[in-house]
Amino acid sequence: MGDDRTWAQRFAAPADTDLTLAGYDPADTSVGKSKASKQLDAMRDDLFDLHELMMANEDRAVLLVLQGLDGSGKGGTIKHVISAMNPVGVNVAGFVEPEGTEKKEHFLERIKRNLPELGELTVFDRSHYEDVLAPAVLDGMSGDDFDERIAEIIEFEEQLVERGVTIIKCLLHISYDEQRERFLRRLRRHDKRWKFSEGDLDTRAKWDEWQVVYGKAIGRSATAAAPWYVIPSDHKWHRNWAVASLLVEHFEAFGEEYPEPFTDTEIETFRARLEPPN
Amino acid sequence: MGDDRTWAQRFAAPADTDLTLAGYDPADTSVGKSKASKQLDAMRDDLFDLHELMMANEDRAVLLVLQGLDGSGKGGTIKHVISAMNPVGVNVAGFVEPEGTEKKEHFLERIKRNLPELGELTVFDRSHYEDVLAPAVLDGMSGDDFDERIAEIIEFEEQLVERGVTIIKCLLHISYDEQRERFLRRLRRHDKRWKFSEGDLDTRAKWDEWQVVYGKAIGRSATAAAPWYVIPSDHKWHRNWAVASLLVEHFEAFGEEYPEPFTDTEIETFRARLEPPN
Repeated sequence: MGDDRTWAQRFAAPADTDLTLAGYDPADTSVGKSKASKQLDAMRDDLFDLHELMMANEDRAVLLVLQGLDGSGKGGTIKHVISAMNPVGVNVAGFVEPEGTEKKEHFLERIKRNLPELGELTVFDRSHYEDVLAPAVLDGMSGDDFDERIAEIIEFEEQLVERGVTIIKCLLHISYDEQRERFLRRLRRHDKRWKFSEGDLDTRAKWDEWQVVYGKAIGRSATAAAPWYVIPSDHKWHRNWAVASLLVEHFEAFGEEYPEPFTDTEIETFRARLEPPN
Repeated sequence: MGDDRTWAQRFAAPADTDLTLAGYDPADTSVGKSKASKQLDAMRDDLFDLHELMMANEDRAVLLVLQGLDGSGKGGTIKHVISAMNPVGVNVAGFVEPEGTEKKEHFLERIKRNLPELGELTVFDRSHYEDVLAPAVLDGMSGDDFDERIAEIIEFEEQLVERGVTIIKCLLHISYDEQRERFLRRLRRHDKRWKFSEGDLDTRAKWDEWQVVYGKAIGRSATAAAPWYVIPSDHKWHRNWAVASLLVEHFEAFGEEYPEPFTDTEIETFRARLEPPN
């Protein structure tokens, strides 16, 4: 009521060297459940059309970065939101701890191999932010090294934006209690058990450290070129609705139209060539 | 009636050094339109579940190769069939004429960069077969060079199959007349015009050569390890139904189940760790 800010404005995290995630309620909702469900259905159709417009024009790309602790719903968001779009122009790239030759190269190299081409949407299921978060929590990375990588990331993202890539960075923010419920579900349900890994429990044991480091990483890399959005994600339906809303808003802001149609003369010329000379 | 062959058996192309595509009716249908439509809806749900089972087990992968002339419906198949599955485990890789550094490397190198990992489905929208088809039709590639590349492809595909990749190669077979109709639609409709390229007319002008070379490439690379399927594709609904049927059949043949559930003891051990020590 009376709030005419965009969803992007409402979910955007402020630039803050020590952002406190505890100030964000993971169970917050911006819309009721049944309205969210109806709107998501409609937005899925919109997303298909808007994404196709981007494919048709090939002058922009979208990089959706999904970050969040185990069970925060990165996979669920892809399943329920990204599935709306034509797979021809969608890529999903997952990033875990660097392995093999990845360890020997600059941390952004594997990221660069997975960027969207113009006309495409790429989703990062975890991302280059893992390369600051995990070392800081698990390996005692120094504050200077942390800041240096953040500076490299900011520069890298600015270059991407200049090349026509819109970057949408979402933290799927869940509570400690909600993570417990989701882990229990994975433990008990035979068709969810494969999503559970014992290492997730080690990560959970360092919950507070992760929250602090996430706050720093997000606050320090929340730029005008590539903002962060904190998505209250304890309610899956709200998470899906919010990410879809952000995507639709960004696509719509492109204001794209289909390329100019052919003239009648062009059509006639081409049509004549549809039959061979004899 | 009385035909208990699988769809794979019915659509499979025989090994034949000079396969004649003219012997295959592009307008053929194996099922009525309304039945096909209902079955496709059901198969889309099955595909989601079967693909998730493969993701859960991570011991197999599927490579769907889509080949066909311009307008044959490679993109449409992806849009209507592949979209049923979770984007987390789906990749689509398109291959056009080799560009830049691709020209200097072995023709299979760019293919190797785009293979599915275990648990994933990858779709090739055109493929390594372009590297025999286009040179033969456009650049006068010799018969020996053609056969040599086919031999390399056969060996490459056999190695993939040994590593757990099921390869499903589909030729989307359309008629000369149907291609005309689809090109006209792209010319006239402003939202389809972006799919039309003037070069498609040059390709069409060599229709007969393409048919002959396609027949040779398919017949000579139709192996037991990686069969070719000729999909009558003048009717889009039949094409979608047929490719979906092939995918479902292959997935079902894997006979996969979800991994073993945890025991009650394991669940209790993990559950205790969901809370930190104090």
